[in-house]
Amino acid sequence: MNFSPGPTNLPAAVEAEVKKLFDSERMCSMYLSHRSPEFISILEETTKLAREVMHIPDNYEVLFMHGGGHGQFAAAPMNLCTSKEDKATYLVNGTWSQRAAEEASKYATPIVVSSQNKDGSFTSNPSLDNIDKDSKYIYLCSNETVNGIEMHRLPKLGPDSPPLVIDASSDFSTKSIDWVESNVGLLYACASKNIGHPGLTMVVIRKDLIGNQQNICPGVFCYKTNVEGENLWNTIATFNVEVVGIVMKWILQQGGVEEMETRSIAKSSMIYDLIENSNGFFCTPLQDKSIRSRMNVPFDICGGDQELTKEFVIKGWEQGIVGLRTKTPFGVGKLRASLYNGVSVENTVKLATFMDQFMKCKQKS
Amino acid sequence: MNFSPGPTNLPAAVEAEVKKLFDSERMCSMYLSHRSPEFISILEETTKLAREVMHIPDNYEVLFMHGGGHGQFAAAPMNLCTSKEDKATYLVNGTWSQRAAEEASKYATPIVVSSQNKDGSFTSNPSLDNIDKDSKYIYLCSNETVNGIEMHRLPKLGPDSPPLVIDASSDFSTKSIDWVESNVGLLYACASKNIGHPGLTMVVIRKDLIGNQQNICPGVFCYKTNVEGENLWNTIATFNVEVVGIVMKWILQQGGVEEMETRSIAKSSMIYDLIENSNGFFCTPLQDKSIRSRMNVPFDICGGDQELTKEFVIKGWEQGIVGLRTKTPFGVGKLRASLYNGVSVENTVKLATFMDQFMKCKQKS
Ligand SMILES: Cc1ncc(COP(=O)(O)O)c(C=O)c1O
Ligand SMILES: Cc1ncc(COP(=O)(O)O)c(C=O)c1O
Repeated sequence: MNFSPGPTNLPAAVEAEVKKLFDSERMCSMYLSHRSPEFISILEETTKLAREVMHIPDNYEVLFMHGGGHGQFAAAPMNLCTSKEDKATYLVNGTWSQRAAEEASKYATPIVVSSQNKDGSFTSNPSLDNIDKDSKYIYLCSNETVNGIEMHRLPKLGPDSPPLVIDASSDFSTKSIDWVESNVGLLYACASKNIGHPGLTMVVIRKDLIGNQQNICPGVFCYKTNVEGENLWNTIATFNVEVVGIVMKWILQQGGVEEMETRSIAKSSMIYDLIENSNGFFCTPLQDKSIRSRMNVPFDICGGDQELTKEFVIKGWEQGIVGLRTKTPFGVGKLRASLYNGVSVENTVKLATFMDQFMKCKQKS
Repeated sequence: MNFSPGPTNLPAAVEAEVKKLFDSERMCSMYLSHRSPEFISILEETTKLAREVMHIPDNYEVLFMHGGGHGQFAAAPMNLCTSKEDKATYLVNGTWSQRAAEEASKYATPIVVSSQNKDGSFTSNPSLDNIDKDSKYIYLCSNETVNGIEMHRLPKLGPDSPPLVIDASSDFSTKSIDWVESNVGLLYACASKNIGHPGLTMVVIRKDLIGNQQNICPGVFCYKTNVEGENLWNTIATFNVEVVGIVMKWILQQGGVEEMETRSIAKSSMIYDLIENSNGFFCTPLQDKSIRSRMNVPFDICGGDQELTKEFVIKGWEQGIVGLRTKTPFGVGKLRASLYNGVSVENTVKLATFMDQFMKCKQKS
């Protein structure tokens, strides 16, 4: 039972399919040339499935790129701002959008609208009023993995507003996206949370935004180059593409992205409710329930008591529960339960039961 | 029997080990957090093995990066040239060094020393006389995958010469490298030929060259950032790292890089000898035997006869021989047998036997 913020387990049925790739009669995609007809049909199938799952309109291109989320932190401004003088609005509501704005300052003039508190924490979203209309785009991270802040629906800023650029690394494929109404220009997701394993980044870009890259944009990060090369400008991470395809197929079989959202709500509510009803034994930093992440539930035990936290992690580990303690900017005594598509409702029940028992056991003693 | 220029099969024993990763008791690295102690020990082991196999001295750092070979085409000049005015010498002896020089012109002033023939082909290496001493580095591709030109040993240009930057994407781990005597500054290899599967690039950089990157260098391509982040600045391609480790272990078990070279000589000689002795039925473009690639043997049949070539490919396919025909800049009627570490001596014998039988059959009729 892996509650890691990623890379992490994929749905059990997906992992079983992945394993089968090594047993099958046909050659495993890991060992296929990226230009072979066999791989090209895997690539086309994965793209088709991803389009279907996410209802991606025809005027968007789907790319599978290198470089992870951080690669896109650089790629977005390099491709959408024609020079360093071009402005781009960065809505900063946590660790990753903050890092994205820093990287963007190499290639553009980011206008940062931040909701950071005086103590450095994030517990709200920045205001959407007074957005700079001359910005080339408005950047946001739809789920802040570290801080546990999620936009359950993308904002609809109206037709006059610049297009949105969205880091959906940790919530892609867990809820629907209204591409047109939300004026989405670019969206990307590193594969290592909901849709696959690390080494691949999925990028969705609206066609009219392609072709404005700066001269200094490396070919591997140039959307135009990769679109023209039909995803094969350089060697694509073949096997990772096939795994994303298996995930997409599984999502469709389960009932699509709507069903993923229903499950995400069920799973995260279970943990948040338990925290709310623990009389302060467990605590989660966000008071505003409307922005609580369904993907990553940050919490602590008795105000971050180190002894208790340690015991909790060890006891959990003994029951096969892993990934709650992570090494990202979190301090000591901070925990986080990540509930991506790979985490089943059953395993979330087990986590909740474990948390409940731990609390009761401690409250007795 | 896969003779593809890559991605392609790994040694059979390696593939068997990879498959076992999905059966083992411990969690498969594909699903491990990159910051978990389990993965960090895999990363350390892979690095240690790679250092041992390639005898990498302590004053070099080993990095596992994103972006493939093309990513490094950009990363090398961005990290080693402080501005676009800085010069770098590019020895161009084929497709990939040519592409690298083009990418470099975004970030530096490449001085191209090319051996390209008037008809666009490459059949020799450029002269090493009169190298510009003010260049920040001298770039070369030690095996030109498409053109079949290999430097079996790196040049030793003397202590006054700028450091070498080497694209060893298609020959890394198939022969020894004299890091000090050849004044190697930077060497990289995308994983998809000899050492693993696509999605990972191995980079070896001499410590004194780290830290001169340009402001516009994306974090994912910055050697300093990745060294300081101990390969975990962003999410590393966890599973690919483990596969590289398995390959490195296999090489050591087989007798090291020296044994790989012995096998490469044996395998490639078998095919080149057959071509030489075919009285022009088969033909390989390079007359200079000293630069013939042991990795990629380009050849054609009766001057590129299209009917014969087609028949050859189909007959080969019927016997389980694949990957000879590729889609890279090659024209119609051009073939290439790639003989990476993953291709056994036995399978090379089978290819040679097939070629011989095909020729005899055609010569009779
Ligand atoms: C929302 C978000 N964006 C970006 C990243 C960074 O991705 P990568 O490590 O692939 O660069 C992460 C990683 O956790 C993330 O959660
Ligand atoms: C020698 C060499 N360099 C660079 C590359 C490009 O690597 P990638 O496709 O990973 O960008 C290749 C790919 O075949 C190659 O053979």
